[in-house]
Amino acid sequence: MNEFELIDVFLEAFALRPPPAGPGDDAAVLPPTPRAQVVTTDAVVEGVHFSRRTFSLGDVGHKALAVNLSDVAAMGARPTWALCALQLPVGVTASEVRALSAGMAALAAAHGVSLVGGNVTRGRELSVTVTVAGEVPSGRRPLTRKGARPGHRVYVSGPLGSAAAGVEVLSAAAARGPGPVKVERAWDALVAAQRRPSPHVRWGLEASRFASSSIDVSDGLVQDLSHVCDASGVGVALTSGALPVLEALLLWCESERDVLRAALTGGEDYVLAVTVPPSRCRAFERRLSRLGFGAFPIGVVTKARGLTVDGRRFEGRSGFQHFGEGSARRR
Amino acid sequence: MNEFELIDVFLEAFALRPPPAGPGDDAAVLPPTPRAQVVTTDAVVEGVHFSRRTFSLGDVGHKALAVNLSDVAAMGARPTWALCALQLPVGVTASEVRALSAGMAALAAAHGVSLVGGNVTRGRELSVTVTVAGEVPSGRRPLTRKGARPGHRVYVSGPLGSAAAGVEVLSAAAARGPGPVKVERAWDALVAAQRRPSPHVRWGLEASRFASSSIDVSDGLVQDLSHVCDASGVGVALTSGALPVLEALLLWCESERDVLRAALTGGEDYVLAVTVPPSRCRAFERRLSRLGFGAFPIGVVTKARGLTVDGRRFEGRSGFQHFGEGSARRR
Repeated sequence: MNEFELIDVFLEAFALRPPPAGPGDDAAVLPPTPRAQVVTTDAVVEGVHFSRRTFSLGDVGHKALAVNLSDVAAMGARPTWALCALQLPVGVTASEVRALSAGMAALAAAHGVSLVGGNVTRGRELSVTVTVAGEVPSGRRPLTRKGARPGHRVYVSGPLGSAAAGVEVLSAAAARGPGPVKVERAWDALVAAQRRPSPHVRWGLEASRFASSSIDVSDGLVQDLSHVCDASGVGVALTSGALPVLEALLLWCESERDVLRAALTGGEDYVLAVTVPPSRCRAFERRLSRLGFGAFPIGVVTKARGLTVDGRRFEGRSGFQHFGEGSARRR
Repeated sequence: MNEFELIDVFLEAFALRPPPAGPGDDAAVLPPTPRAQVVTTDAVVEGVHFSRRTFSLGDVGHKALAVNLSDVAAMGARPTWALCALQLPVGVTASEVRALSAGMAALAAAHGVSLVGGNVTRGRELSVTVTVAGEVPSGRRPLTRKGARPGHRVYVSGPLGSAAAGVEVLSAAAARGPGPVKVERAWDALVAAQRRPSPHVRWGLEASRFASSSIDVSDGLVQDLSHVCDASGVGVALTSGALPVLEALLLWCESERDVLRAALTGGEDYVLAVTVPPSRCRAFERRLSRLGFGAFPIGVVTKARGLTVDGRRFEGRSGFQHFGEGSARRR
């Protein structure tokens, strides 16, 4: 397939607007907007974020968009459009491209995101770089990492550590030998968290009515909260018993200590972590609960800098870094 | 270096706004805009678009942004902000990242483009994916590929075939043996066109007052004009003698035929090709000339579909495709 045929195959699954609002011109044209916009870009790369043995191409397409939607969600914005830059190995087949596209298109449709353009190039490894924009609802401000004040409560939007355990499950399954990777049903939720994270877009939109700061947990809770602490000039005191985890994580881990480590440092959960002023906590919890969403209080913002867990200063590996030892150990 | 250190080094060369307008949050926040916006994304990949032997990292940084600015220019828009997603091999050094960044930052500054965010990940090969947005000047419409009508004249903004010849010059120099690649001064202009293309942003902005359609010549004149023909439902008749080329191209090519082939099918020139209604041609040419820009009339739009050169239907390889035979032959 040549470049243009690949593009046509990739675009089949998407509901596209005609150019210049959709793909087909040198750039996509977007109408003026009276609202503030947020933009972000993130990539998933073969051999770094996934392997072809443990991820389907549909998973890859889903995840490449999901990690960006999570960033938009963290800003309290509603995702609007996306651009997708594909780097495809020579010899990629139409059905592979179709699978990749289907995974991304389904998630885009679920969130009302329009694919407005992109790019295709060759590369030795498969990589998908997505750019997503969102708009800040009128009358609201975008959430940022700055704004946490001592006394504000820290909440997360879902269970922690699942995606990191999912990597372990998949690695263990792959190590059992060649051929298709088979995973026991017991670990489905962990594997799903790794392959098909659900960006908490609606949660972030609701949180933006109440929260003082926000971040998405992509590199591990401790590391991501440390960014909030740095930007806001504060610290955080976490309560280990309050960290939400899946039952499957408890079963997978050999010790309580491993569970805690996964919850504190495991990357790629793509849940949101926000801080809420005490005066707004009750309304926040009520609102989220009325919508059927969890909002898990896990700690409190402190004047003292640094991060503590159950009163002890947290030391140790702080999350998922692509270039540090951590990442070499991870995959 | 870990991920965060790499990001810090990369950002040093840029004039950054503080977050959330600049890098440092989960997404960058942009103010509302009363003007239509254009957005595009494009990548340069090691082994596909450049090799480390024949490109400096500064060249790579420059080119990754330039190819996107060219797309914005083709739309008749003024570039405003950029996102940069880097894929860096393990072991990349701070000075390499600094060189990459310097090349990109200088071009961004020259065009008043703000880097608002990005991403860094590992990868086996170096690749740089840039997203650029632009705004359409008030009272004007974006230029697209649709709008060319029979009788409109076809213009390009600069010499053709130079960048493709630049690849040949660099390949020949690299084939002479190991060690640093040395190029004779006579071919400097060809090599510069390949390594450091100048996006014709101002030209595109001016052209948008007059032109009926536009595209940037990235895949080769014939291929790119065929997109205009398809979108507009027309054909184009080119005059070979009118195609602007550098003197260096005439010297480099062994025959007139090779010159013509380079001008018609050579990719990556990043000049603009526009069509202008006959009634506006004089004003267009005068305006461009007053600004010191060239506007080279190379042919005319025809009712008959297809592309002719000196009256003969053009057949043959139609440009630079990443997955077709052409690209395998090119590098």
